[in-house]
Amino acid sequence: MKIITVTGYKGGCGKSMTAIHVATYFSRLGDVVLVDGDPNRTAIAWSDRGQLPFLVADERKAMKVVQGRDFIVIDTPARPDSSDLKELADGADLLILPTVPDVVSLEPMLQTASDLGNATYRALLTIVPPKPSREGETMRAELSDNGLPVFKTMIRRAAGFQKAALAGVPVSALTGRDRMGWLDYESLGKEILEVLGNG
Amino acid sequence: MKIITVTGYKGGCGKSMTAIHVATYFSRLGDVVLVDGDPNRTAIAWSDRGQLPFLVADERKAMKVVQGRDFIVIDTPARPDSSDLKELADGADLLILPTVPDVVSLEPMLQTASDLGNATYRALLTIVPPKPSREGETMRAELSDNGLPVFKTMIRRAAGFQKAALAGVPVSALTGRDRMGWLDYESLGKEILEVLGNG
Repeated sequence: MKIITVTGYKGGCGKSMTAIHVATYFSRLGDVVLVDGDPNRTAIAWSDRGQLPFLVADERKAMKVVQGRDFIVIDTPARPDSSDLKELADGADLLILPTVPDVVSLEPMLQTASDLGNATYRALLTIVPPKPSREGETMRAELSDNGLPVFKTMIRRAAGFQKAALAGVPVSALTGRDRMGWLDYESLGKEILEVLGNG
Repeated sequence: MKIITVTGYKGGCGKSMTAIHVATYFSRLGDVVLVDGDPNRTAIAWSDRGQLPFLVADERKAMKVVQGRDFIVIDTPARPDSSDLKELADGADLLILPTVPDVVSLEPMLQTASDLGNATYRALLTIVPPKPSREGETMRAELSDNGLPVFKTMIRRAAGFQKAALAGVPVSALTGRDRMGWLDYESLGKEILEVLGNG
């Protein structure tokens, strides 16, 4: 069993979106449960509007449904303090920290590196504007240069994610241009497998 | 695997004390983990001061340690709202609601009955003053007459519990008069087994 926890310093960083699509990726490889620990219950609401290819469980009912699963993806509240972050990392095989590529997100992300020590974690650039914008690459380089491990994959800003949320499905269930965002999460999934394999 | 969740409307109702001693009882029957979900981390602090006969895990690390256990005892934050209470009950095989025998605790406990519907739960009288006081029996009868399921066992008010907390052990590890409170939790444990057996 592998535990992947997604957390973030701010709302609107694609945290629940990432938890849902990571869970979607792993649902092709095994039995997955997504534990929704965000008080907003974004993942549960997403699931309730349609259908996701894995079980979504309220954190208050999680213990009953996690037994024997291959993968547990945990969506946490936003804005953990540093002690929360350390405990979350210790409780997971991998901690994913989504962040949008803007300058106000940089400082708190860099602080993370000192908080997390030797834990297994990766920053993930999300809601990255399309080329010719270089905001994603620039932020990625800033984090990396400052010693913070960052996924190579960046998640594009794409209308498909909104449509998927409204329809209550993963973006992989859409077609045409709306499905493009799935390519990013597929690429991310492969990177995650590498990290877990080395863990 | 059986999940026993302990929650309470107020602080100071013996919630963590109950979680610890229920876990102690079940540690004689199988492999137990106590998940400390109370922000005060009372159970973890209790354990850190000495040694408890089971693993105590921070809730943020719980997923990693609950796999394959025989019994999971969950200590929750005090003051759940009614939706929390329903979700907690749905996520457990038994929900225990400790309450002290005082008149201000009566109304919120009675409200519980309507909140919880058909869930498996029991009220537990705690910190019950010794005879000739009849506070425990009176409160127990009030709850029961109003349709709230209540454990027959009541947990006495006893100095041993404070000593056990300071020493970081269950009261069963003490001797003489200080150990008397353990008789109550042993009796409670038997009642819990009956409830779980019928579940």
